[in-house]
This record gives sequence, structure tokens and C-alpha cells, in this order.
Amino acid sequence: MTRRHDTVSFLSDYGLDDEFVGVVHAVIRDLAPQATVIDLTHGIAPCDVRAGSLALARSIAWVPEGVVLAVVDPGVGSARRGIAVEVAGGAGVLIGPDNGLLAPAVAMAGGADRAVELTNTAYHLDAAAATFDGRDVFAPVAAHLCNGVDLAEFGPEVDPALLTPATIPLPRPMDEDDPVAGVVAEVLWVDRFGNCQLNVGPDDLPPTWDRHLRATLPDPDQVSATVVRAVTTVDHFAAVGGGVGLVLDAYGMFALCCDRRSAAVELSIGVGDQVTLCPGEAPQPAATPVSFTR
Amino acid sequence: MTRRHDTVSFLSDYGLDDEFVGVVHAVIRDLAPQATVIDLTHGIAPCDVRAGSLALARSIAWVPEGVVLAVVDPGVGSARRGIAVEVAGGAGVLIGPDNGLLAPAVAMAGGADRAVELTNTAYHLDAAAATFDGRDVFAPVAAHLCNGVDLAEFGPEVDPALLTPATIPLPRPMDEDDPVAGVVAEVLWVDRFGNCQLNVGPDDLPPTWDRHLRATLPDPDQVSATVVRAVTTVDHFAAVGGGVGLVLDAYGMFALCCDRRSAAVELSIGVGDQVTLCPGEAPQPAATPVSFTR
Amino acid sequence: MTRRHDTVSFLSDYGLDDEFVGVVHAVIRDLAPQATVIDLTHGIAPCDVRAGSLALARSIAWVPEGVVLAVVDPGVGSARRGIAVEVAGGAGVLIGPDNGLLAPAVAMAGGADRAVELTNTAYHLDAAAATFDGRDVFAPVAAHLCNGVDLAEFGPEVDPALLTPATIPLPRPMDEDDPVAGVVAEVLWVDRFGNCQLNVGPDDLPPTWDRHLRATLPDPDQVSATVVRAVTTVDHFAAVGGGVGLVLDAYGMFALCCDRRSAAVELSIGVGDQVTLCPGEAPQPAATPVSFTR
Repeated sequence: MTRRHDTVSFLSDYGLDDEFVGVVHAVIRDLAPQATVIDLTHGIAPCDVRAGSLALARSIAWVPEGVVLAVVDPGVGSARRGIAVEVAGGAGVLIGPDNGLLAPAVAMAGGADRAVELTNTAYHLDAAAATFDGRDVFAPVAAHLCNGVDLAEFGPEVDPALLTPATIPLPRPMDEDDPVAGVVAEVLWVDRFGNCQLNVGPDDLPPTWDRHLRATLPDPDQVSATVVRAVTTVDHFAAVGGGVGLVLDAYGMFALCCDRRSAAVELSIGVGDQVTLCPGEAPQPAATPVSFTR
Repeated sequence: MTRRHDTVSFLSDYGLDDEFVGVVHAVIRDLAPQATVIDLTHGIAPCDVRAGSLALARSIAWVPEGVVLAVVDPGVGSARRGIAVEVAGGAGVLIGPDNGLLAPAVAMAGGADRAVELTNTAYHLDAAAATFDGRDVFAPVAAHLCNGVDLAEFGPEVDPALLTPATIPLPRPMDEDDPVAGVVAEVLWVDRFGNCQLNVGPDDLPPTWDRHLRATLPDPDQVSATVVRAVTTVDHFAAVGGGVGLVLDAYGMFALCCDRRSAAVELSIGVGDQVTLCPGEAPQPAATPVSFTR
Repeated sequence: MTRRHDTVSFLSDYGLDDEFVGVVHAVIRDLAPQATVIDLTHGIAPCDVRAGSLALARSIAWVPEGVVLAVVDPGVGSARRGIAVEVAGGAGVLIGPDNGLLAPAVAMAGGADRAVELTNTAYHLDAAAATFDGRDVFAPVAAHLCNGVDLAEFGPEVDPALLTPATIPLPRPMDEDDPVAGVVAEVLWVDRFGNCQLNVGPDDLPPTWDRHLRATLPDPDQVSATVVRAVTTVDHFAAVGGGVGLVLDAYGMFALCCDRRSAAVELSIGVGDQVTLCPGEAPQPAATPVSFTR
């Protein structure tokens, strides 16, 4: 029995200043007018496959049953494969390039049940060129899936174990011999509000630590140097006050944050920067630090 | 009798570079697949509640019957309430934080008939954190409203008179004893085209004034100083010519404007700046200025 | 027999930071709730009619049957006409200002079958002002077309031959007497990825040329001077390697491109810049250039 899908959730690095996103919508509307397209985001930085894979992984738990169309595809037109990956017993199919973009979301959806390479050109649009597979390959395949075409029609099965994996950095102890001394983390994502999500969840911080932590960060004024900032765990932004907070964010990860301003600006950090968390001390009602030189 | 709504009009400060907006769409699609979501805008500056409240107030007359979902919510997770406000005899329900964001639109829709605090977690999503109520509280409530759940189900009634009001600056006479001498106004909004909407409508300008006005504006080159510019009232942008116009805009307010370029750039002004309007003089057919050097 | 349309494809220079696009959606939803609106793009630079006309022309082949609503309209409120243009035997109707914006798309759709001027205010919204015809004129006309109102109802017929044409620059030979010596082209469009589309298609380059070309470009460091760069034709971005490629793009035009970075940045060029293409030579396995001074 084939399954008809009625929702296409669409993520890309196409931006909204050009008509790329609109044309993909147009193609799906033309081929599967009954389908609804949801735009997850198209603001992934151009060609940033890792950022796209993380945004898709953050979204996937809320995406409705149906088709996911994801395109961050610097290798478009080259030997890299286009794939469709079935998950959750057929409740979902993810479509995109086989460059690691889909991998974290597939894993979060329980792993691949089935995968095919999108080689059957009968389901593609005729194209002048090989530079816009979002329009010419992925969108029509998404539409035909919504129309009930079985995954097997789109091309030969490929072993899901051989799909390109994603590489997500894991946190590590600062000192292998003393796992509660500190955790070396990395900024995965800076959102519009300047919150800096780390690759650290609740299980990655020693349960003996209390609310008061220290964060060692790159020194914005000196290459290879670091600065140390007091950080307090909070459960919402307004609780941070004037300092820097560490909040368990809406995706279950810890994020550095400020109240009504950007932690990324305050701390001069960005995606990929290393942040080391260590136990700290409750702030003392101490004398204001004095500095005799600038 | 409960009323089923089929449209959710959505405004936020989430931007489109992250997947926040897409995930809210996904949640609504999952819970109320028959509903249509319209994006009013998500370009409100982060945490700028007043700008969000003004954009919502400008939109509300054109928004179809149904649910309005508005999220500019720096206090998310704190003691601030989430609310739903019924207007127009049940034709519309506005959902969002009780921080003044909804207030001007509610007023323009004729005032609140009923309001509830969104405390019934049976209609919320289970959430890892308290930082994304748009996804976890407001979107599911919007979807359940579309499914016909009555407002009273979402939580206890609150007195509409006790909801947080908005503070919109009013224009005032330059001289209390001489109301036709001038009007002290404020820039409420600068749009993409650089038009600067003032808090001044047709009733706020003395009827004795003619088309030729003077505007006193902050001097961009000198703190606390002002400059005076000739301004002519026009009824469309192309009529401005090379100078600065004052046009009755599409929302019934006066806006400073230029023809095919930005008045905000031309005048170096922005939201919150003070602009004093006074009667002026028709430009003289003076000699063309001559310049001997380039 | 009147035809009901069910899709409105919408392009504008409204941007997404204000609520203009959302209000147009709201108006269409209110008047024609059964219609689906597709956003082609709203990122056209403010008042850039030519850029809008090119984006619409690039999109039109993929736009589904129905209504096209296009608004880049610096002359709004002036004597410029609002028009609706029927194409493809009634399969499509393009709506917008008569300023050349629609012309290239109309031509690509096979030319105008019928055109009317939108003067019948019975199908417009009452408006406080003449500055937002997208909301007050074009959107309601689009909605009424979806509801089956015949084109003739919206106003008097106008001769399609008298509509404002667009001016798209054509490539020309570098030397009229030697057409294979070189082609003088212009950058039509720089996309988000920095690809620079030229006004040159496959038929515009002499068939005797091989893959290795030279491009003469404006010198970014010196006014009125030029620089020459080696350019290799490729069929996808990853094939470019570290240099500059010329790829037949997804719209059938040649574009200067780089691999995973912006050709516009690499070459310091933008829309309207002149690029002269000439036959080149295959790169020699030459000695690395040596420079004794920095």
C-alpha cells in the first residue's frame, strides 16, 4: 500500500532575496496542488551543510508527518547523490543531497528504514543545467511522494549505513582524570537573539555542580588568549539580570544567554568557538575590581 | 456554541534566519491541519514589544476573522502571563504574552470581550524548557482554538481592564497657548522604503495650515541641536520631486517621505526621534544656486 | 465561461521586515479563502523595477496556472496605470503596475491575449491613501479573479501593444567586423551565492570557442580601468576548483561562478557591470609567479 503525504516541510540555504524558494513552492504546487508546504527556514548560511543539519535536527521532533525537503547543496551537479530516506515506518521521508545534511534528523527520527538514490529522471523536471536540483529533482520528487508514488520508484535502494554521516562535535572533559573539573564545549548555534547554544545537555554536566559556573572563552582582544566569565544557570532569560546566564534551551541543550541582549555580542563568540565550563563561586558582595592600567 | 476558526495570522520577532517560525507552523499544522497560517511579519526587532504592537495595530483592520498569534516576548518563562483575548463578538481571538503587545490591536478591534490566562497545560506541549512559549504554549492554543475548543478551556478568565496596556506617544502642541503654532510629533515607524510614519493623523494638524510646512528635526551632526527642513504635503511619493514630502499614508497617518529614496536616510532620523511641524512658506522661484567649484 | 483560479503567485519589493506582504495575504485570504498564495520573492531592492521584472521572468516558466501578482511600484498613486494582463489563453493573468515590471514575463508566457486597466473601484478596497495599491487595488483584484470575476469587469481594455515595455540589455560583439573576437555582456543578476548571471545565452557565444575564456572586468582598484581574468566553462560549481567558472545556469543563461564562495566578491562586480568575454588559453603548468615585494 502506498502512502500519500500532504505536508512538505522545507529547509534550505536559498535565502529569501532571490526567487529560489518561491520557484520550489511553485513546482510543488503545480505537481501536487493538494500538498501544503511549510518553510522551516531558508536562512542557513550559503553552503553551510553543518548549520543546515543542526537546524533540521532541532526542528524534526515538531515536523508533521510527511515529506521533509532539505537543500544545502554546494556539490549540486557533481557526483554527490540525491537521496530520499524513509523513517518512522513510512510516516516521514527526508529528501536532499547525500552530504550529511539529513543525517542528524534521520537519527533523531529513529534511523532510516529505507533509502533510495534519486536517479529516475522520469520524476525530475527537464533542466537546462545541473545547478538547481532543488527545483529540478528534489521538489518534483517531494510532490510525487505526496501523490502516492512509492519510494522505490525514484531509484535504486541504497544501504542507509553507507549514507554520508554528519559530524557533530561532542563535549569532552577538561581533564580525563578528573571528569568533574570541567567540560570543554563548542558553540553549535547562535540564534537571532544572540543565545549561544553549546553541544552540552543536562547529562554532560556533573550533577555535583551548582548554579555558579565559570566559562573560559576566547579573548576577543588577543589571539590564542582566553578570558574567564562568571555564568549562572537560569531557567529563563529575565532571570539573568545584568550578567551572563546558562539556560537549558527549548531543544534540551544549554545556551549562554543574556537578558534582552545578545550573549554572542556580550561575549564576542560565535559558532565553532570553544567554551570551557567549570564550577564557579557565588558572586561575593566584594569591592569593585580596581585596575590601575587600562 | 463554539466557533471554529480557520485562519491564524502570525506576527513575531523571531526573524526568518532560524527555524522558530517554521516550527510554530509545524506545530499548528500537526494539531490543526485544516487551518491556514498567514505570516504578518517576523521582522520585528528582537524584544521590541512596542514595534510589534504597532505593526499588529497597523495590520489588524485587514486580518481575516480567526486567530491572531503574536509573540514578542522578552519575559518568556518569567511571571508574565500568556493570554488569549476575544474581540468582535468572538470573530477574533488574539493570543500572546500580556506585555502590551496585543493592546493596541485589541483596542482597534473594538476592545476585549473576554480574556483568559493560558494556564491549562493540557493544551500546551510538553517542553524541555520555558524559553519558547511560541512553540509550546501559544501555537498549540491557537491550533486548539481552530479546532473549536472554547476560550474558557485554556485557563481562568482575567479582567480585560487589568491587562497590560501599551504606551503610544501622543502628539502635543508646541505652544499650549497657541495650538496652531506647531505640533511636536514622534517617529513611530520607519518602513523598508525609508518612509517615517509620525504619530500624527489628519485631525492632529490645524486645518488652517496649507501644503507648505517646516519640520524641525535632530541635527545629525551635532548633539542636542536641530535643523529645519521645508516639507510639502503630497498625496503620493512621485509628487515629492527632489525634496521631502509629508504623505497621508496607507494607515491614515502622516509620514515623511522622498521619491524613490529613503526619507530616513535623507533626514538622518529614526524611530523615537522628535519632529516638530510648523506652517511654512511656498518655495520661492529663486535664482538657481551657482557653484564655481566642484 | 469564466475561469476560476486557485493560485496567486506573489512577487514584490516589500521585503519581509514590515507587514506589507502579510497584509496582502490577509486581504486575499479574506476575499478568496479558497486561494493559495505562493511567495516568489519579496526581496527585490526597493523600487528596482528592472530587477523585479527579471526575477519574474526567471520564475514564470515554473509558476502554476492562475494569477501572478507583482508589485514594484515607485509610481504608486501617480498617473501610472494598474493593469491585468491575460496570457496563455486565459491560463494566467498577471496583475501589477504598468511600468515594465510584467513585460518580460508576459513575453515569456507567449504574449498578452488581453489587458485591462484596473479602474473599476467596485473591486478595490476603500483606502485612506494612494500609497499601498498592493493592498487596496492589486490584492483584491487578484482575489476577485480567483472568485471567477471576468477580466473585463475590472476596467476598460487597453491595447497590449501600448503597455510599457521593459528594457533588457542585449549582448553585443566586441568588434562588429569580427563577431568571434569577443562578446560584450552585462551582469543582470547577482544571486545569494554570488553567482553573476550575464545577459548571454548559449547562442550568444561563438561555437568555435572552447572552454577556456578570458573575461575583461572593471578594475576594483582604479576607476575606468579593467582587469582580465581566466574563466573556464563548467557544468557545475564544484568543477570550478580555485578559479572562476562560467556555468550555464538553471535559467539557461551563463553566469560567472566560484566553488562555495561568491564570484561577485571574488571579482568585485555587481549588477550592471560590463563583462567582455573573449577566447582564452588553457592554463599552462607554469612556474608559480614570484613577487619580491609585498
